[in-house]
Amino acid sequence: MSAPEDRQAEPKPPASERAGRPRRPGRPEGQTNLADNILDVAEVLFAESGYAGTTLRQVAERLAVTPAMIAYYFQNKDNLFRAVFTRRGFSISRQRMERLQALDAGGSHTVEELVRAFISPAAELFDDPQGRAFLRLHARLHMEPEELSYELRRLVHNEPTRAYADAFSKLLPQLTSREIYQRMSLLIGAYLYAFSGASRLNELVQEEETDPMAGLLDTAVAFGTAGMLQPIRDPMG
Amino acid sequence: MSAPEDRQAEPKPPASERAGRPRRPGRPEGQTNLADNILDVAEVLFAESGYAGTTLRQVAERLAVTPAMIAYYFQNKDNLFRAVFTRRGFSISRQRMERLQALDAGGSHTVEELVRAFISPAAELFDDPQGRAFLRLHARLHMEPEELSYELRRLVHNEPTRAYADAFSKLLPQLTSREIYQRMSLLIGAYLYAFSGASRLNELVQEEETDPMAGLLDTAVAFGTAGMLQPIRDPMG
Repeated sequence: MSAPEDRQAEPKPPASERAGRPRRPGRPEGQTNLADNILDVAEVLFAESGYAGTTLRQVAERLAVTPAMIAYYFQNKDNLFRAVFTRRGFSISRQRMERLQALDAGGSHTVEELVRAFISPAAELFDDPQGRAFLRLHARLHMEPEELSYELRRLVHNEPTRAYADAFSKLLPQLTSREIYQRMSLLIGAYLYAFSGASRLNELVQEEETDPMAGLLDTAVAFGTAGMLQPIRDPMG
Repeated sequence: MSAPEDRQAEPKPPASERAGRPRRPGRPEGQTNLADNILDVAEVLFAESGYAGTTLRQVAERLAVTPAMIAYYFQNKDNLFRAVFTRRGFSISRQRMERLQALDAGGSHTVEELVRAFISPAAELFDDPQGRAFLRLHARLHMEPEELSYELRRLVHNEPTRAYADAFSKLLPQLTSREIYQRMSLLIGAYLYAFSGASRLNELVQEEETDPMAGLLDTAVAFGTAGMLQPIRDPMG
């Protein structure tokens, strides 16, 4: 798995834009890198310690800057968290929509292609440590206070989730909307848990000299595809 | 779904035993209920705010007792968390082992029966608010510091997880150990996310007068069974 090309080709917008806030007038030139570094460090700290367990002071200490500098860019912890989450969250969301549009443009497609298009933009983040921090933060977000997590998840995920639900419905017209969303919830839980590093795969898999995560994306796609397509006949039954 | 019968029939052991600690000599009679109440309240608070975000003082305040009373029973927050987690954790683990033994005793069984036996003891907790708090706490545990969470999850889950992995392997002998554990991780993530209340099903499902969780256990079992049994041919492909 490699980083999606669009992220490599596009210059990153300033952190304040990515966080959905207007660019602050008078911001010094040449400090975009610091804003990015703040987001990177905050991503790791929020992933490790959660929203409540992380302070602006900790972020500042890791970067050897003053807390006032963090506050200059992001005002407060709430805004910083939103900026961290939406930076990658919107990237995942946009890639999901683009892949769905590409499938639509290509004519007929399969449930498996839909599942892969949905999972891949998030699962590919597992390839680098910073992306892994986001996956961990994201899995943790479900346990953060609902007023924070629901709003952010709605903001980032509702559009692609509803678009994919519609696309699954077209391929699986016998299912009610409830059944579609239940299956999608199981699909999301499955890949998020496996890729967030929460699964203890590294200690459960005991074969020597084997990467416990090898082939996990393909396994997750096949697992999710089978799950979306159930019922199937159990050959043992 | 109803509470497993064994939990209704058995008198609960004192909290200190359930937490794996010896019963403290000289404990006043008739206070077992307080220990249980402490565990119930702590379960809700840990589920809401996580390990770092919860204090013994908060638990004491909700019960209108002194922090010293909590400390009398559970010494410190670490012990209290362990007692909360192991109380239901070992109950789930024991039920999983019992259901597996019952399947073994009955002769041949299906992948679907294994999946149901594995998921049900945890999913049934969703039926009452206190059980839901545990599911939330459990989903959150994956994001707690590894030194706490890995030890507790190992303690509670390793035996049934390995026993079910062996059972799945017998029915799916073409899969390597890694593939079995990857699929089981996807299975665990799927049901845990859907049943932990993290999934926003309640706001995504828009059909009126419909319980968004209705039939979820059966859907999860079918989803997980299909996933364990993959690859299947995609009828759209």
